[in-house]
Amino acid sequence: MKLRVQQAQLAAALQQVQKAVSTRSTLPILSGIHFAAGETGLRLLATDLEIGIETWIPSEQQEILDIEEPGSIVLSAKYISELVRKLPDPWVDLTVESNFSATLRSGSVEFTLHGQDPEEFPKLPQLPPAASLTLQSDVLKEAIRQTIVAVATEDTRPVLTGICLTFDAESLTLVATDSHRLATRTLFLEVPDSGERRQAVVPGKSMQELFRLLPDDDRLIDLVFADHQMLVHAPQTRFYSRLLEGQYPDTSKIIPTQFKTRLYINRSAFLGALDRAHLIARDTQNHVVRLQIVGDQVEISTSSQEIGRVSETLPAERLEGEPLSIAFNAKYMMDAARSVDGDQLVIDFTGSMSPMILRPADDLPYLHLVLPVRTV
Amino acid sequence: MKLRVQQAQLAAALQQVQKAVSTRSTLPILSGIHFAAGETGLRLLATDLEIGIETWIPSEQQEILDIEEPGSIVLSAKYISELVRKLPDPWVDLTVESNFSATLRSGSVEFTLHGQDPEEFPKLPQLPPAASLTLQSDVLKEAIRQTIVAVATEDTRPVLTGICLTFDAESLTLVATDSHRLATRTLFLEVPDSGERRQAVVPGKSMQELFRLLPDDDRLIDLVFADHQMLVHAPQTRFYSRLLEGQYPDTSKIIPTQFKTRLYINRSAFLGALDRAHLIARDTQNHVVRLQIVGDQVEISTSSQEIGRVSETLPAERLEGEPLSIAFNAKYMMDAARSVDGDQLVIDFTGSMSPMILRPADDLPYLHLVLPVRTV
Repeated sequence: MKLRVQQAQLAAALQQVQKAVSTRSTLPILSGIHFAAGETGLRLLATDLEIGIETWIPSEQQEILDIEEPGSIVLSAKYISELVRKLPDPWVDLTVESNFSATLRSGSVEFTLHGQDPEEFPKLPQLPPAASLTLQSDVLKEAIRQTIVAVATEDTRPVLTGICLTFDAESLTLVATDSHRLATRTLFLEVPDSGERRQAVVPGKSMQELFRLLPDDDRLIDLVFADHQMLVHAPQTRFYSRLLEGQYPDTSKIIPTQFKTRLYINRSAFLGALDRAHLIARDTQNHVVRLQIVGDQVEISTSSQEIGRVSETLPAERLEGEPLSIAFNAKYMMDAARSVDGDQLVIDFTGSMSPMILRPADDLPYLHLVLPVRTV
Repeated sequence: MKLRVQQAQLAAALQQVQKAVSTRSTLPILSGIHFAAGETGLRLLATDLEIGIETWIPSEQQEILDIEEPGSIVLSAKYISELVRKLPDPWVDLTVESNFSATLRSGSVEFTLHGQDPEEFPKLPQLPPAASLTLQSDVLKEAIRQTIVAVATEDTRPVLTGICLTFDAESLTLVATDSHRLATRTLFLEVPDSGERRQAVVPGKSMQELFRLLPDDDRLIDLVFADHQMLVHAPQTRFYSRLLEGQYPDTSKIIPTQFKTRLYINRSAFLGALDRAHLIARDTQNHVVRLQIVGDQVEISTSSQEIGRVSETLPAERLEGEPLSIAFNAKYMMDAARSVDGDQLVIDFTGSMSPMILRPADDLPYLHLVLPVRTV
């Protein structure tokens, strides 16, 4: 293997795959990055067997990459990424000798790194062309951002540590819940698929990495599902994740369809008040804060015997239905208010012991449900 | 106590004293900040008994502070600082009731915090007007920055965890050493003092806090020393630190006054090469990197059986004396090269087993000594 590549391009590609490198695997080769130079370009691959990221630099443009001799090698991620980032010259020459040893030259710098046998590196699975979805990258990213906050972080019920993706010919719905709150967003697909209704639960951590990896624009990406795996085809990148086993709970019935009180409130003012109340609430059990509707005002308050108390009054921008007093976890409510976009927030209440629904004021198919907390 | 103060001014004052708040003291009152409103203004004080920081907001300007009723209280630093920073209104009203309870009002927000008895809070020591030095704030900051990196972090010899300040009527010399390297800087005093030659060893951590606290301008500050304490008078701030006990070693004799090789080199190019070599060296014992002078070139190289090797050649900007090959700890050398200012660095060598001296190319009374590492 012998090639010349732009330092900036190689550094960017290394950064892309970095997050899939295993940090504590018992398989030493997984702490490396697989390099393969072929006819189409230079392909980089890393995997910790939970997720895998593959990215490539195409050899179409000689001013970016020039492959003189194809080949492959596995190089320790820890050294190669930082090293390439710190090279002084805009060009890097990479040569691999037959003894799995790679030499990088850049300006007057010469680095020789001991590598590993590329044949021992696991390959990304080749999924049969089963259910597949096509959608815009930025739209999927928005949906991930809006739901991921409700994913369970404790794995008492492992299936809840994932985001449940339900899809049919026309739409994809994301649901996340940790059983105290729930977030759901529906997307309409760009290229309808003929497949029947299906479900896949993708680990929250994988979705976090996918979010980081996807471009912030409207380029199309494909999601391909097999029984235990998801593969995402994005521009110059492939992302792989295993799926979570187990039946995801049916959450459709816990979302109330009626309300007793509907509150329209300025989102940033509401977040500010919650943030201040949380200063005290965070050191109490369940982070309890109370919301009380008095006339056309909303009072946010909390108190703790040890610390003190706080109260604050905000104007309601519009109010429908009955007065109300309800207590909730301030952290969950802040997470919900943050994941709703726009200046105005709509909150539907169905009584002091029933779920609250937060939605954006415009008609986006997104909602965030928060359960109240029982107080003495 | 009853006063009205600008939120931004109070938040800034709280941030100033925050670093002296005890985080793990057995004395609960030290986790608080002492507030005292009097004729001259509002005074804030925090101490962990190692260091103390006092700052004040003068009541000269009514648009900043308006004291209606003097008084004092101790409030938990954890809550008051974050709370004041998050208040929505530019003004804060602070009222203290007789039961050590404080109420803050800002806009529609009302916070009540349980406080503690201000009489129980320790006071900053009143030092007798003994040895005192007057110098510019920014000059002292520069000297701290240039020496603090060589302070010992392990306390096998506790006195080396401090910076040694030696002063006479005209100058102040700072010395730090961890016995592998040494940094020293001499300052000339703005207001010569009549006192005899004296020495005080200030803990490195205290100097770090003092650095953070001092303004970046040429305003004058006073350093006052007593047997076991140092007190710094800065604009609207007083800083207190206890001193370290024990005799600081006499380091004047270990600094070579002659050289066999003198190298002038571009500082950022030298730092870049060390940084790249350090990628491999940091995972070896003593972080060993070798510098070799070949002709008018400088080669920086290192190797490790497990990882690989690196070598890089830099041009010397000027060279005097004999060729040389020497090995050193890359981290220490980088610390030294960073603490020397200017584009060009001068390094004096007195042989492969003798100390190296780094200095700026201009004639600043600063030098950084690094010991070589013996290699096989």
